[in-house]
This record gives sequence, C-alpha cells and structure tokens, in this order.
Amino acid sequence: MNYLLSTLILVFVLSTPVNGQHHSHTADRPIVFPDVPGYLTLSVDLHMHTVFSDGSVWPNIRVQEAVRDGIDAISNTEHLEYQPHQVEIPHPDRNVSHDIATAAASDTDLIVIRGAEITRSMPPGHNNTVFIEDANKLLSEDPMEVFEEAKRQGGFTFWNHANWTSQRPDGIATLTNMHRELIEKDLLHGIEVINHTTYSDEALTIALENDLTILGTSDIHGLIDWDYEIAEGGHRPVTLVFTTERTPEAIREGLFAGRTVAYFQNMLVGKEEHLVPLLNASMNVSSAEYGNNHTLLYLQIENTSDVSYILDNKSPYTFHQHADVVILEAHKTTELQVKTIENLESVELTFEVLNAITAPDTHPTITINVDVTTGE
Amino acid sequence: MNYLLSTLILVFVLSTPVNGQHHSHTADRPIVFPDVPGYLTLSVDLHMHTVFSDGSVWPNIRVQEAVRDGIDAISNTEHLEYQPHQVEIPHPDRNVSHDIATAAASDTDLIVIRGAEITRSMPPGHNNTVFIEDANKLLSEDPMEVFEEAKRQGGFTFWNHANWTSQRPDGIATLTNMHRELIEKDLLHGIEVINHTTYSDEALTIALENDLTILGTSDIHGLIDWDYEIAEGGHRPVTLVFTTERTPEAIREGLFAGRTVAYFQNMLVGKEEHLVPLLNASMNVSSAEYGNNHTLLYLQIENTSDVSYILDNKSPYTFHQHADVVILEAHKTTELQVKTIENLESVELTFEVLNAITAPDTHPTITINVDVTTGE
Amino acid sequence: MNYLLSTLILVFVLSTPVNGQHHSHTADRPIVFPDVPGYLTLSVDLHMHTVFSDGSVWPNIRVQEAVRDGIDAISNTEHLEYQPHQVEIPHPDRNVSHDIATAAASDTDLIVIRGAEITRSMPPGHNNTVFIEDANKLLSEDPMEVFEEAKRQGGFTFWNHANWTSQRPDGIATLTNMHRELIEKDLLHGIEVINHTTYSDEALTIALENDLTILGTSDIHGLIDWDYEIAEGGHRPVTLVFTTERTPEAIREGLFAGRTVAYFQNMLVGKEEHLVPLLNASMNVSSAEYGNNHTLLYLQIENTSDVSYILDNKSPYTFHQHADVVILEAHKTTELQVKTIENLESVELTFEVLNAITAPDTHPTITINVDVTTGE
Amino acid sequence: MNYLLSTLILVFVLSTPVNGQHHSHTADRPIVFPDVPGYLTLSVDLHMHTVFSDGSVWPNIRVQEAVRDGIDAISNTEHLEYQPHQVEIPHPDRNVSHDIATAAASDTDLIVIRGAEITRSMPPGHNNTVFIEDANKLLSEDPMEVFEEAKRQGGFTFWNHANWTSQRPDGIATLTNMHRELIEKDLLHGIEVINHTTYSDEALTIALENDLTILGTSDIHGLIDWDYEIAEGGHRPVTLVFTTERTPEAIREGLFAGRTVAYFQNMLVGKEEHLVPLLNASMNVSSAEYGNNHTLLYLQIENTSDVSYILDNKSPYTFHQHADVVILEAHKTTELQVKTIENLESVELTFEVLNAITAPDTHPTITINVDVTTGE
Repeated sequence: MNYLLSTLILVFVLSTPVNGQHHSHTADRPIVFPDVPGYLTLSVDLHMHTVFSDGSVWPNIRVQEAVRDGIDAISNTEHLEYQPHQVEIPHPDRNVSHDIATAAASDTDLIVIRGAEITRSMPPGHNNTVFIEDANKLLSEDPMEVFEEAKRQGGFTFWNHANWTSQRPDGIATLTNMHRELIEKDLLHGIEVINHTTYSDEALTIALENDLTILGTSDIHGLIDWDYEIAEGGHRPVTLVFTTERTPEAIREGLFAGRTVAYFQNMLVGKEEHLVPLLNASMNVSSAEYGNNHTLLYLQIENTSDVSYILDNKSPYTFHQHADVVILEAHKTTELQVKTIENLESVELTFEVLNAITAPDTHPTITINVDVTTGE
Repeated sequence: MNYLLSTLILVFVLSTPVNGQHHSHTADRPIVFPDVPGYLTLSVDLHMHTVFSDGSVWPNIRVQEAVRDGIDAISNTEHLEYQPHQVEIPHPDRNVSHDIATAAASDTDLIVIRGAEITRSMPPGHNNTVFIEDANKLLSEDPMEVFEEAKRQGGFTFWNHANWTSQRPDGIATLTNMHRELIEKDLLHGIEVINHTTYSDEALTIALENDLTILGTSDIHGLIDWDYEIAEGGHRPVTLVFTTERTPEAIREGLFAGRTVAYFQNMLVGKEEHLVPLLNASMNVSSAEYGNNHTLLYLQIENTSDVSYILDNKSPYTFHQHADVVILEAHKTTELQVKTIENLESVELTFEVLNAITAPDTHPTITINVDVTTGE
Repeated sequence: MNYLLSTLILVFVLSTPVNGQHHSHTADRPIVFPDVPGYLTLSVDLHMHTVFSDGSVWPNIRVQEAVRDGIDAISNTEHLEYQPHQVEIPHPDRNVSHDIATAAASDTDLIVIRGAEITRSMPPGHNNTVFIEDANKLLSEDPMEVFEEAKRQGGFTFWNHANWTSQRPDGIATLTNMHRELIEKDLLHGIEVINHTTYSDEALTIALENDLTILGTSDIHGLIDWDYEIAEGGHRPVTLVFTTERTPEAIREGLFAGRTVAYFQNMLVGKEEHLVPLLNASMNVSSAEYGNNHTLLYLQIENTSDVSYILDNKSPYTFHQHADVVILEAHKTTELQVKTIENLESVELTFEVLNAITAPDTHPTITINVDVTTGE
Repeated sequence: MNYLLSTLILVFVLSTPVNGQHHSHTADRPIVFPDVPGYLTLSVDLHMHTVFSDGSVWPNIRVQEAVRDGIDAISNTEHLEYQPHQVEIPHPDRNVSHDIATAAASDTDLIVIRGAEITRSMPPGHNNTVFIEDANKLLSEDPMEVFEEAKRQGGFTFWNHANWTSQRPDGIATLTNMHRELIEKDLLHGIEVINHTTYSDEALTIALENDLTILGTSDIHGLIDWDYEIAEGGHRPVTLVFTTERTPEAIREGLFAGRTVAYFQNMLVGKEEHLVPLLNASMNVSSAEYGNNHTLLYLQIENTSDVSYILDNKSPYTFHQHADVVILEAHKTTELQVKTIENLESVELTFEVLNAITAPDTHPTITINVDVTTGE
C-alpha cells in the first residue's frame, strides 16, 4: 500500500543488530561529475525503450530510474518501425511514451526530451533523433525522408550501435555511403561510441574523422538496476554534455556543438578539448606542504568525480609511496609524497590519464600546477 | 545489446583492485526455507500487477523478479474493474497478462497461475481469486456473481488488505456480513494477513476464527527491487505453502487445506500446526558434546532458513554465553553452551520463538531434543 | 616508516575503481551511548592484561585499542601472582604496566586507572582491584591481607569470572564463605556478570542479592580486534558507569555507588534504576503525526545507542507494519504506525525490552509518552 | 576465557536478522599467489619487531598475524643496537624473540627464521640479516665485523629502507662506498625496494645495477591489522620467493639466487625473469569460443592472484566491451570479447602489465596464446 516498509527494511539491514556497530554501505548511486569552466556538466541518456516499443516497463519507471541515477535528462526513443507489442498496444501514438514520461516527471527536476528510434536494416541501421516535435510524422517508407523530417523538426540525430553484431557480424563500425550522405546533408550529427555494454574504437574514429558528437547511451529495454548491477556499484552509460544552462535548449545546443564526454564503466571518452577540462575540474590539490627535516612534498589530491583515475606519472619526480601508476579513487582524497630533492615553491606534475580516451589507444595528458605554500 | 557487461561490472566491483582482497557481498537473494516432514515448502506470491491494470511493468519482468527471488509460483492478479491504462491498452483481454507471463516463464521452473483481482468498494473490498480458467468471465456487475463464477472455475479466493486505510480508515480489519456470507457459501477461502508492507493482527484473528487460509503477498505495482530494498537484503512478502508436489494442483490443494505460513520481514505467521514443523525443520543440532573437565554442553545449532529466529529460553538450564534471549541467525550455525550441572546423555531445550506468530501476541514454543553422544 | 599508506589503502578499498560508486563501510567502531539525566554515561574496561603478566602486547597497544573503541577509562590489571614472562621480564615493578600506559595515553583523553588482579585459587579465586596507589604493596601471602591493603589504598575491588569453568566446572557462579566475609568487611564491592565472552545469570543474582556493583570486562590477553571481531562489527564488553564528571574520582564514586550497566553483545545488564534511564535516553520520538483521512499515528523513534533494542509491545494498540515484537536498530530511526482507532492528542506506549536484563529472565518495561502535536 | 564469542559475534554480524538475507563480507585475508613452473611461490616477511626491540607485541602475536595472513615464513629482526625497553627487559638474549616465536608457531605450518637488524647511522644505515645461527654474536662495535659474522653464520643480508628520510632527507636511495664494499665482499645480498608503506624507484635501480635481491617487508612495529587496514582489504608488503621446496633452506637458496618478486599495495616488483612467469601463472584462459553469426571471440580469463592486473592492450585486435586498458580483477574471471574480424583457430594477445614493474617506469609485456577450440 505504501513505501514505508522499504525504509524500515533499510533501517534494519544497514546496522548490525547484535553488536550495534553499523556498516552503512550506501549505494551512493547518483552519477556525479563536477562542472567545468564556463559550462555545467549535465548527464543525459538519450536511448531508452518502454512497453511502447520493445521495452518491458511503463514510461514512469524510466523516470524513476533516472531520478535515482541523478541524471539530468532522458529521452524515450521508441522504435518507430519495430512494435512487438502491437497485439496488446495497437497502433500507439508514437508520442505517448514521451508524454507519459513527461507527466511522471512533473514533480521532479528531470528533463524529458521527445525522441524516436529510426529502425532500419543497414544502411542506415538504427538511428535516434531527439528534440523532435512530433514522432508520428517520422513514420515514412523512405529512410532519407525520415531523417529530413527529423531535421525539419529540429532533431539532433545520431547513429546507434554502429558496432552491433546483428548488423555488422565483425563488430567493426564502418561508415557507409548512406551515412556519408547523411553527414554531408547535416542529417546525422552524432554517433554512439558506447551503447549498452559495448565500446567501439572504430566508432570513435568515425566520430573524430567526421566531427560527429560522441555519445554513450544505455539502450535499456529491461531494468537499469539489473543490466548495470546497480546494487554492486555499477552505473548505466551516459553522455556528459557541457551546457550553459540546465535547459532542454542548452542541452540541444551542447549536443550540436559536440561538447560531450561519454561515461562508461570506469572510463571517459571524448575529444581532448572537452575531456581535459573535465579531468582538471575533477582533481584538486587541497593541500601541498613539506614535512619537517626532509624534502618530501605532501600533496592531497581530491577527486570529485565518479571515475577512479588511473594516472601514469610523466613528471621528472618519483614518489615515496607509489610507483609510476597512481590511482586517484573516485570521491576520495589521495596523498602523493613527491620527492622534489629540494624544497620548491611550485611544482608541476604531469600525468597521462590511462582511462580517459581521446582516440583509440590515445590518452590525454594533464598538468597539475602546485603552489607549495597555498595549494594549487 | 547483451548482458555481459553486467557480469563484468560485477566482477570489478566485488573485488578491491588495489589490495587484491575481495569483499564479496553476494546478494544471496533467493528466498530459502527447508521442507517439512511430509511436504515440500514452496514460496508463492499471489498478488501482483502489471501494465495490464495499474502496474508499471510488462509481465515478463514479474517473471524475472520471481526467478531472481527463487519463488516457486506467482500470479498476476490484474484488477478486473480498475483499468487506468485504458487509453493506451484499450479493453485488454483479462487473460493476457497471465498468458504473456506464462510464455516468459517457459524456459524457467517458475509456475505461473492464472488469477484476477475483484476490485470493489467495501464490502467486499478487494479480493483475489487464483487458479481460475478464464478471467474474462469474471467481468460482471454483481460482486456475488463474480465470486460464484470464480468458484465454478475452481478459483481459490482470498480477501486482500482487509486493513487498508483507504477502505478502513482505522486500519482495523473487520469482518462484514457480506464476508460472512462469502465464507459460509465457501466463496472466500483465505485472507491476507500481510499485504505489501503491512501486517494485521486483526486479519490474523479473522483467519483463525473463520478457518481462512493465511496469506502474505507483495501486491507489487512498481519494482520488487525498489519496494523491498533487495540491494539492502530485503525480500518481498510471500506465502509458504506446504505441498505434496511442486505442481499448480498441489499448490492449490495446499491453499484450500490452509497449509500456509506467511513470511514477512524477519517474521513468520501461521497456524501452530504448520508453523512448528517449519521451525523444527529450520533448526538442527549438528553437534552436541561436553568439553573436558567441566559440564558445559556445547551445542551447534544450524539455522537453514531465511529467518533469524529470536528465541526465549524456557528450559531449566542457563547458558554460559547468552542470557535468556538468543538469536539464531539465518543460514548460520550458532553455538550454545548449556550449563547442565552434570554430564547428561540427553537434554531437552525449550524455546518460545518470539518472531513466529500463531495468534496476536502469541508465539509457538519449540522443543529441541539433544542426544549428547550423537547430536540430535 | 609512517602511517600514510594505511590511509591510501583505505582510500582504494572504500571505492570501486571501475564504476566509481563507493561502498563506504565505515567501521563505526567507537562504543556510543547517550548520557542519562543527571549523569554522564562513561564506558570503562577494568580488566586487561599486557606482557607484564600473561598478555601479549605492550601497554601502549591497550591504550590505542581503547582510543579506537572510544572508551573513557581502562585499567591494566596484571596478575600479581601469575608471571609467566618472568624469564624475559624478571621481577617487574607491578606498577610499570600502568605507568607505561599512562605515558602512552598522555596525548589522548583516555583515563588510565591503576589496578591489579589478585590471582588465587578458589576461594577467593581471581579478583581485580582498581584505583589503588601502589600495586607492589599488594604482594602478600595471605589473600585477606591483600584485600585489606587494597581497601587501605582506596581500591574498588570486584570478583572476576565467578563462572569460570577452571575454578567452577559447572560454570555456576556460587558465593563462598570467604566472599561473604569479604562483602561483610566491605572488601569486595562488585562482581563481573560478564567476562570476556561469557555472561552469568548466577553472577547477576549474586550481585543483586548482595548489592554488588555489576561489571562487564574484556579480560583481554591478545588483541581486542581479534577476540571481538571488530572488523565484523563486534565490540568488547564494557561497563557503563554513570558519573557526575569525566574524571577518575567520579568513575570511582559511580562504581562504589553501583551506578553501572554492563554492555555485552547486543545486550545491556543492570539494576532497573540504572538501566531504565539509559533505555529512555536511548529512544527518542522525533516526530508523531497522523496521516490524512485515517487514524494511523506515524511515530519516528530514534535510537541513539549501540544496542538494537528488541521490544515487546505491551500497549493497548496494534501496529500497521509490525507484530508485537519490534526491533529498534542501533543508531537508526524506526517508524511505527500505531492504530489508535481515533485521533488522540497523546499516546502512551509500553514495551518490555527483551535484550535488557535486570535479573535472570527479567526485562525492564519502558513507557514512551507521545505528545502527538509536538512529538515526545 | 575462550574464543567462542567471537565466532558468535561473527555469526550475528554476517547476516541481516530482519530480512534473513545475508551479506557475507568474508575478510578473504590470506595472501594468495599461484606457483610458477618449476617453483613454489612462497610469501615471506623478513622485517618485523616485537617488545624485544622497539615493537609493541610479544612474539606470539607476530606468529598469529602471519598465520592469519597466510604467510609462509617470517623473521623477527630485532634491532641489535636499539633497545628502548631496556628498563623493563634488561639485556635480553638477542635470540629470545625468535625462540618464543618458534615455540608459538610449533602447532602451525609457519616457518620462523632467525634474524636481526644491524642498526647503524649512515652508512651503512639499517640492514637485516636472516638465517643466522646466533644473534648475540652480532653484537660488536665495528659494523663491518657484524656483516662478516653474519656471513660466517650463513646469513642472507639486505639493506633496509634505503629511502628512509631520517637517514636520507630527500628520500632518494643512494649507494655509498661502504655499501659498494659490502656488495663486493659478498656481505650484502639484497635491498628493500619496499619498506612498510614506501616504494623506491631508486632502490630498485640499485638492486638491478648491483644484482641485489629485491625485497618488500612490513617493518611492522605495532599491529599488522592497523598499519595495513586489514579490515578494509589491505595487506602487508611481502616478498614472494620462488623455491623448490617449502623449507627454510629452500627459501634461503631462493633469496641468495635472487628469485623474488615484492608485493605491495596492488603492485608487483621484480626482475623480468621472475615477474613474467608469475604473471603468466596468474592469468588463465578458461574458455575461448566464438558466438553464433558473428566473429567475436569470447574469452574468459581467470586471475588466480591477489593483484588486480591493469593491462594495456598491445594486440592487433580491439575489444567489443573494453578500450585498450583492461583490468583483470583479483580472483575473478573477466570476459574479453575480441574482434578478430574472421573466425580464427588461435589468437595471440599481448598486454603490457601496468602495475607490474621490472625497472623504474618499465612494465613487462605478457603474451596470452589462445587456442580457440580448447582454451589456452
């Protein structure tokens, strides 16, 4: 009847009744990244399904999942052409999934974006378009017409899972002539480098070579909690969009401008100009001082992001408690003891970030400038 | 696209990458109780909703939740008269939820039982009927006719949440004349003593006074994982049915015979003749021996059930490491050191089980007979 | 060389590097109980050993363990007559363990109390005396002389593990004539009802019948972390003393006055006049209000203590989400929904506290008076 | 009195009494690495202190810690020249710490090795010698005489914490002329690259340039559980020695032969010829097969070691669910989906192991040869 028991159960489980010592293991579930200079960092999931195509939940569940995940914006992108629940839900209004989600989100901060999935064989395969006005108008035989209608409506359109083995048995994302044409005509603006549980080096190359916006999406059909083992600390893939405001318009602008980083497992993928500011914003030197009677510089580096950064030291210094590879755990402060030989007033540390990716096998380098007296 | 990532995420999260020590915190999720002499102990959830009434999931999710919970049988009991998704799912076949669930369960061991919820104002309020043949035939103006049709089809019918504050503002389950009539005519066979997050002493009294079968159900509309905080160790309420076989027919027979115990939070509710055998089957003395040079009897008592039993010692002995209240943790072995004064060949221990309930404020007493040489 | 790594290891382990979700499982180790009206609630452990008798650590470890456990006062009570390390540590000054601990505690808030264990066969068995001035002066053949010297020095003296099977093979604590004499001469002031991992109903009876102070002690020889599974949420037994100040003198006064409760596993043992105020101070109604359109009173009860209280409802009301036995988890807030039938301005709830013990098989009853408008 | 309570506490804490779901979080504490071809992999800690120099525990605790840690051999290396407990333990026999530990280990499999720490200012600083016969004979003014006596007794001698800021304020391990002389005279055989919480690139260089055996030690003075946050999954540094037998002699032979790898945090340090076989033995392909209708090779790679390996892909293939950096979690099986373009009969994967170190900034490369039909 109501939800109070779940609270009570939680209360019970989180403490140890006999000894009274409590082991809280908060499922610190919300996805958290810091803003970057000039922009807000918003997380969006622009590829999801409900019972209105081949998903297994009513749209309100997608809203509740997103609220639990601390996501800023979602889009229910039902398959336009694939309707396996047609018997039970005959000829649905293609806007209804969005409309129900919008109503369900009315008392939340979640932004719900109208979208749809153009579902074709290759080429052009599956493509999402979001920020459209009327999904019903996208129902058309000729795929090119659909892309053009999406553009007329202002849609931001991107290629889904170009690595999908059902359409590419080798899993190698490969640009087709039709995709080239779509890009040339400004009908295709982005590409999923990450879809559900997959990552594609080749899709990343396509994004970079064709200046497409990099996206990561959940493509969820069942439950986020199950596919992404939320109980075990997992998270869905999302696209981080750098925007001037927390509005649908600003997200759309950020997507068209290509200001994104995709977040997948413990990894970030994006163009260097967007990734490096996010890395810099994530790592802050909270204190930097020498100890007594020796020349070890004690640095406290706070990581305010969800990613545990794997750093490879490229500085001219060695460390007293680490070798060259140092992990800065997510939402923790890590101490580095830098052997600077003499007491310095400022120190420049350089690291390659091994789980940040700007191109296949390519990782950005960040510089941390430390002012010894006052911290960074 | 596939579910492999979740496995990988799990792999990552369950170990601690830097130190290599792994803290597995297996969500030992399945509901587990031992069988009792003469019967299998099956767990069933006979009150659930999907998008085909006012629930938020497709029926396949109810199947998957049940499989994860290790439940033996479920019934999707959609409201016959309450259809809030009528716009999107017009005039559904009242059997479709069951049929989809049955198909979804085809490659599992889950038993799916056809049912429906007769949804009226008080009296008779809400009542479920399960093991019916055709839910569509239950659509009728006159509630008595519906109960009679359910009976004609062989349905097992029970009163839902008699404590529901929307229909009883004081939350006090109270028998009405119409319920008396239903019982007299053998049209009502059971009552929910536990519904969702609630328990009702008064419903238990009604069950006992009218020889109704005691039931506990989830009445789930959203997600089991969320309402019952599965990630934190919670579980949905279920009814344990003692059956001769693991078949729908045997479950139906057990329900009509009243052989049930309801499992809710860390508590069991049932008639004494069904509860005591379950308690006895749950606690086994795996070893019983005296130490050297003293008269302490060391007992190892294994609890093979999901409930952590709260025992109140009624024996003529005191313990060396416990006072009178002893907790036997679920799925653990607890040692008791019994001060028997002299070395005995057999010992009889008596406990009141404080979180087992046979009537309001009434707890069963169990006797553990210990043969010192060989264990129980 | 230094302790920084441990912090770094902690940092690593407490988060999950791949998904960036952190499962903190803080070892919320310190023992925490609220103060009671008129008194501070201090935790003391007055029975511990080091290498200076038959223990395995230097006294500084006892200090560090106590600081980690959040204990207010300790006493290293080395055996006067049992010196198994005599070869390596010949003829130790019997005060040296205390003196080293005092020095080790100099930069902490820990109170270190001089004590010793008078170690004899039965009678009088083993007895501790604390708040003495010079342990060396307690070395004497005649046990009565030792007790008298302890009294001359102002010592508070108590009988250790009267249930010890090495001296009582049946584990039944039994008063001897010598103990009667000691009590009559005011040479024996307390008794361990809890020692290490044992509890004794019979020792409790002796305490009550002879007005001896009730004590619980660790009697630690090895490591607290191991004997009491601190990593798994365990704790050492301690005596809670109700004092007017946080000073050695006030603790001594509280002990002589018998104002104690022993804390063991998930259980409290004490005289009713000391136990009930502690229970009352531990449970606070933080909010009490009726919902809309029904007469359920929603109570939020906060438990500010380390014990998860097992309550047995003795009120004239039943609950909407619990049966008669309710657990208030340690350091959590539990909601009770009370079925009061009509909206009341004040409600009196009465509970027997099953894991609080005032005499064998005897549990105190507490009353929670709820003012519905404003909370308790 | 006995240790049974701790078991009971454990029992309580590891399950959740109210819901009956248990979250076991086994402190899977023992250090575990696989054997390598031709050799056993033994873990040894050859630098520890007790009350017999400046440590805080009796030697039996060092034995119990080692047993809990699953270590094969330890040595209590008390400072010969630094005796801060001289007042309480006057003029101790320098062999007594070892002798007590040996007795304490008599009913265990632990190997206890006689050793001592030669404790001088720089040069030669602090040096341990182990496998000696009589520590008392090492008491001598002239440090060279001590090293020579150690050699006469058969001692394996190594330089401790060459990076120690108390003796090298810049933390830069630097060879002195005296050390060169010791090495030339075969009086110095190894060097700590890891001591307590520190790692030294420069000490590793000294080891490599002078063919010294690489060691990692705990240098524990207090408690292993605290310095290395065992409760949070930490571990002490140890030296893995590759030996022909599990005997003191074989360990000594392995140390003199330089067959070691040091294990510190989530990192392994050793010469390539010893490190690569250990890496190979740690990672096993348990299954390798293609899916249907596509050319993804599904590899299951089991990591049987305590280290979570951070792999950098150097193969000509990309992965379907990972980018170039892949983590193989400790004691878990990780799936890799390799995009081999066509179905192959055998595949060679090459990885740089980023948290294995053969020289400063240098990581070994491993090759995993996969036979598709049968696994590796």
